[in-house]
Amino acid sequence: MLQADPHICETSFHVRYAETDAMGFVHHAVYLVWFEEGRSAFIREQGWSYAEIERSGYFLVASDLRARYLRAARYDQRVTVRVWLAQVKSRQMTFQCEVVDSASGECFFSASLKLLCLNRAGEITRIPPAWGAWLRE
Amino acid sequence: MLQADPHICETSFHVRYAETDAMGFVHHAVYLVWFEEGRSAFIREQGWSYAEIERSGYFLVASDLRARYLRAARYDQRVTVRVWLAQVKSRQMTFQCEVVDSASGECFFSASLKLLCLNRAGEITRIPPAWGAWLRE
Amino acid sequence: MLQADPHICETSFHVRYAETDAMGFVHHAVYLVWFEEGRSAFIREQGWSYAEIERSGYFLVASDLRARYLRAARYDQRVTVRVWLAQVKSRQMTFQCEVVDSASGECFFSASLKLLCLNRAGEITRIPPAWGAWLRE
Amino acid sequence: MLQADPHICETSFHVRYAETDAMGFVHHAVYLVWFEEGRSAFIREQGWSYAEIERSGYFLVASDLRARYLRAARYDQRVTVRVWLAQVKSRQMTFQCEVVDSASGECFFSASLKLLCLNRAGEITRIPPAWGAWLRE
Repeated sequence: MLQADPHICETSFHVRYAETDAMGFVHHAVYLVWFEEGRSAFIREQGWSYAEIERSGYFLVASDLRARYLRAARYDQRVTVRVWLAQVKSRQMTFQCEVVDSASGECFFSASLKLLCLNRAGEITRIPPAWGAWLRE
Repeated sequence: MLQADPHICETSFHVRYAETDAMGFVHHAVYLVWFEEGRSAFIREQGWSYAEIERSGYFLVASDLRARYLRAARYDQRVTVRVWLAQVKSRQMTFQCEVVDSASGECFFSASLKLLCLNRAGEITRIPPAWGAWLRE
Repeated sequence: MLQADPHICETSFHVRYAETDAMGFVHHAVYLVWFEEGRSAFIREQGWSYAEIERSGYFLVASDLRARYLRAARYDQRVTVRVWLAQVKSRQMTFQCEVVDSASGECFFSASLKLLCLNRAGEITRIPPAWGAWLRE
Repeated sequence: MLQADPHICETSFHVRYAETDAMGFVHHAVYLVWFEEGRSAFIREQGWSYAEIERSGYFLVASDLRARYLRAARYDQRVTVRVWLAQVKSRQMTFQCEVVDSASGECFFSASLKLLCLNRAGEITRIPPAWGAWLRE
């Protein structure tokens, strides 16, 4: 199911010093951590929690990632992570993300990540109907 | 100079998934990253920025750390990092930190870190008088 | 220039505990750190060093990433990072990477990363001819 | 039991780019990750594995840390992590660590970490006698 006009969840925070590297900018792996935190916030905003999802025996695992680095963020900048659900299928979902400068709106990073739904045995499985609440709003 | 009744800066956020380890709890190195972010917030709250400090040619580098791990934090918990300046000397300062559960107030971690003031040449140097503003409030 | 039969650099190490997450496996952002270490090893193997490249005023920055997560690595497993140069253009190069189980050869992760060559001013610039040595072997 | 003349386990690797920060040196939290990898190597060298310890239902968790930062390590430097067991008690053990420049032997970091032995319920428990093999060599 493609999401027309999807809900966008925004989370903002300051760039941490530990997130920079010797080039003086945010290390490129850190954006994946922010994207993940954006997904957590997205689920939280729907009144769910990814922690509950795991307690109920399901896991969402990264499968396919496409990312573009457009501009470099710096320590102490305020950044906003914008996350939305782009597509839901029976056993997978795709989130998209943009990280922007909270002040100017300039885009640092954009990405798309396909996640598979696994059960405790590590097998790809159907997304439980109970998730409809936050998946289809 | 020992700080009697120091100002405490509080910063709160959710535990990120990437910050956990296979034990299911926050990895012990992550608390140092939070403590550092707490110091950034402390300086920001005084109307300064550690980024400005570096631009002006000074660096605060970790020298001596004492940390206690009291309880394990989990993914998605809301935590509060409390940071205060415990002592200021001519060439060094000591920050203290507590990380607590934002809801219950239970303490996960407490630490004390001595930082040295360096110049661009990497030499230990006097803390510039201009910092008085945020150091002695 | 597409590289036919490119040189493959292999680097092996154990998965660190800090690299796992609460799911019990390696966190998906960590593979980018390993890929980067594989590129460092690749350059080192050619008798150069990425540190020297930066000292000479050039930077290679991540621009476009495509990654697939195939299987989950665990703490203490021995993994091998295989990195090769897939393409070199005047102002950019593309590295590819596979992370495999050192014992079984099973593949955990594969990725392709385009890097841009920047100068100190942060402008996209031509790759210096002096790099020919390790770029075209 | 204090260890007189303890066995020292040495592990060497190159500093990864992701381990540096905007100051151009290794971030201070990274040394804890290296110390932990040094403990893993220590246990591995004794023919055990910390992964096996966890599978058998025990966990070693950080309790008390004392660390000194003496010198800053840089990207691509070869570093050696030296780890030894300083003390073993019925429910806890203390590891010590030095990180040195592999070439010059100069010391970057020294630390002491007390770890508690927990069972699956998270209770402090006696170190199993079966561990005698690697604890008392």
